[in-house]
Amino acid sequence: MPSKVNDPNKTSWITVPEGSDFPIQNIPFGVFLTRDDVITIGTRIGDTAIDLGALHQLGYFKDIPLTDDIFLQDTLNDFISDGKQTWRAVRGRISSIFDVENPELRDNEAHKEVILFTLDEIEMQMPVLIGDYTDFYSSKQHAKNIEELLNEGESDLLPNWLHIPIGYHGRSSSIVTSDIPIRRPHGQMFPANSANPVFGTSQKVDFEMEVAFITTDANVLGDPVPVKEAEDYIFGMVLLNDWSARDIQKWEQEPLGAFLAKNFACSISPWIVIIDALEPFRTEGPVQEPTPFEYLQSEGHKNFDIHLEASLITPDGSSTVLSKSNAKYMYWNMAQQLAHHTINGCKVNSGDMMASGALSGDTPDSYSSLLELTKCGKEPVTLEDGGSRLFVNDNDTISIKGYCKNDKVRIGFGEVSNKLLPAITIK
Amino acid sequence: MPSKVNDPNKTSWITVPEGSDFPIQNIPFGVFLTRDDVITIGTRIGDTAIDLGALHQLGYFKDIPLTDDIFLQDTLNDFISDGKQTWRAVRGRISSIFDVENPELRDNEAHKEVILFTLDEIEMQMPVLIGDYTDFYSSKQHAKNIEELLNEGESDLLPNWLHIPIGYHGRSSSIVTSDIPIRRPHGQMFPANSANPVFGTSQKVDFEMEVAFITTDANVLGDPVPVKEAEDYIFGMVLLNDWSARDIQKWEQEPLGAFLAKNFACSISPWIVIIDALEPFRTEGPVQEPTPFEYLQSEGHKNFDIHLEASLITPDGSSTVLSKSNAKYMYWNMAQQLAHHTINGCKVNSGDMMASGALSGDTPDSYSSLLELTKCGKEPVTLEDGGSRLFVNDNDTISIKGYCKNDKVRIGFGEVSNKLLPAITIK
Repeated sequence: MPSKVNDPNKTSWITVPEGSDFPIQNIPFGVFLTRDDVITIGTRIGDTAIDLGALHQLGYFKDIPLTDDIFLQDTLNDFISDGKQTWRAVRGRISSIFDVENPELRDNEAHKEVILFTLDEIEMQMPVLIGDYTDFYSSKQHAKNIEELLNEGESDLLPNWLHIPIGYHGRSSSIVTSDIPIRRPHGQMFPANSANPVFGTSQKVDFEMEVAFITTDANVLGDPVPVKEAEDYIFGMVLLNDWSARDIQKWEQEPLGAFLAKNFACSISPWIVIIDALEPFRTEGPVQEPTPFEYLQSEGHKNFDIHLEASLITPDGSSTVLSKSNAKYMYWNMAQQLAHHTINGCKVNSGDMMASGALSGDTPDSYSSLLELTKCGKEPVTLEDGGSRLFVNDNDTISIKGYCKNDKVRIGFGEVSNKLLPAITIK
Repeated sequence: MPSKVNDPNKTSWITVPEGSDFPIQNIPFGVFLTRDDVITIGTRIGDTAIDLGALHQLGYFKDIPLTDDIFLQDTLNDFISDGKQTWRAVRGRISSIFDVENPELRDNEAHKEVILFTLDEIEMQMPVLIGDYTDFYSSKQHAKNIEELLNEGESDLLPNWLHIPIGYHGRSSSIVTSDIPIRRPHGQMFPANSANPVFGTSQKVDFEMEVAFITTDANVLGDPVPVKEAEDYIFGMVLLNDWSARDIQKWEQEPLGAFLAKNFACSISPWIVIIDALEPFRTEGPVQEPTPFEYLQSEGHKNFDIHLEASLITPDGSSTVLSKSNAKYMYWNMAQQLAHHTINGCKVNSGDMMASGALSGDTPDSYSSLLELTKCGKEPVTLEDGGSRLFVNDNDTISIKGYCKNDKVRIGFGEVSNKLLPAITIK
């Protein structure tokens, strides 16, 4: 079914602007607040938001077994729990409803009035209630860069890195979507020129450009998910900015890892692009040498050719591209990550999220954090307006965009864009 | 109000066996499945479980502003969200209903029939849906022991330990309650006698004896919780066993910390004892030197004198006490942990859980993990039946009990007791 929905020649009766991330071949899922202050699950074609709750109430999904309120929810979790066949059927039906040749809704002005919204009539919400959030460390170049910065020039990977998809648990409660401002955090640091640790506001707020996937219920506690089945439990992908406070991180991270340096904020793009829509953009991943253990041996193309771009926008509105990278740089692919995460029986639920870690490529222009771009705050990046940055300043915005593109179609993620506000005053 | 409810001379018309953890001064909260297969929120006096959903439907809480279905839930999260004044009012009312002098329910056989259950008529459930789970590292002796084991005899604390309540994010989805069996996990390890990493079942499954607290909604993203207000956001406490696979941990933990070594299972006791019930057992914590930063300076007694005991029960039923310790050994108290966790604005929700880390005391008989008790698998512990253990064997049960006691009253937690099942066969 995806092949028909993904047909690049298909067009919609909804206008899709040139270069849009959201042609009729995309059909992402998200949650928004409508002009009537109602929360609903929706999709998007071009610059038109589509209320799936209203579509369902008006009978457009009557051939698909769905509960009446499946789209009248403030998260996608229940819909994701319905499983891959349901996502596929719903996406197929949406594709048909909005096909240029289909008059069913196209010619029904009364229905269109309640189903369609312009983007300025809606407010995007967090698409899922994230139960557990894991951040992997899956770019080899990023792992090398970090080792090089920590060990003054030695860029050897740690001995486990080529055997294990290294990851750690993040904080779900602090994850927000695009356009939500982030606060510069307070914390403890131990500056190089100080005799003692100090308390204050982080002076080294950074971004990490990542992608992440959202899972459905994958197993019961104790049962691994085989790598060959793992993709069946992946609903879709988003862009992710793993906000980081490098000075807090440096002082707190031994021996248990980053904690307050990460859990003040993490942001994701609001539209989840499902794996079916990304099928035409499968690509080879990095060669894995040594051969991974059997439980990690995936077959076929499990990487996706997703172009990524991070920009810094100053308070005056001047925008500078900081990094251009690609999701295909994941050494450990998503199927391997999910198989690894569950090999010990760890339970994975609908709405859990697993991120890639910063996706740095081989060349410095693809390094996906300021830590790497400025060599840990030593070499400033120059901005388009002549200014420079070592880390993110107050009122700067970091915007991450991502899209797949071939000569026929562009499937994009939109963006995750958040402004860093000054720290609050501690009472 | 707690002082009246905590009056040690108060007795109930429900029989409380000698030495019970659950006198009328306790009144913990939990969730159970009744003999009619209904899930309800309840409490317990002696060996009698009390259905709060039924009590509420029959009008016993009519003077307290509660939604009709507040106890007809499968988790305590909504009740916890109602806040401290509500928990206090409900506990006070329960204390009054079951007071030996109060005939209201005591003499109503029809009501008692639907409200009261024997323990074998119910099945305890997870009491909360845990959103985010954090594990601190708050016992100084435990941190010293770990450093000593890692560094061959050097037991110096890491430089940050006396400044920062060190903690890390755990996995919520794998947390179970008492009596749920745990599976020995598979994973990667790098044995000392091997030239390469190997894949197999963990040979070093361990426990960690901890306590944990459950929070209510404490802040909005970006706002710290001041240390002086922190206890207002703590609902209550449970016992926790942080199951750990030491061989998996050793190989995976650099640089981001333990991951699969911990997230295969974590277990908690099913009854949450609220802070009000623990008031008579406040005690001084360890001296904090150097003085913590101002945001961590708590006043008064913020530690609790909770006796802890971990036992290993063999498949034959022979029980051996492995460790006797106390929650008062927390160097960083709960108010400090919550203040630290939110100083960067990290959001804390109803149902989040924060654990103490293994609570080892100063003497070896109080070391709270087999890792410490056996010096990392070098010196076996002897069991009552003449056997010995370096780590947990298949079909062993680890049981952790905890209670507070003075010359007038005993307030206990019951236990968290889980059997380790053999590993599954990987297909």
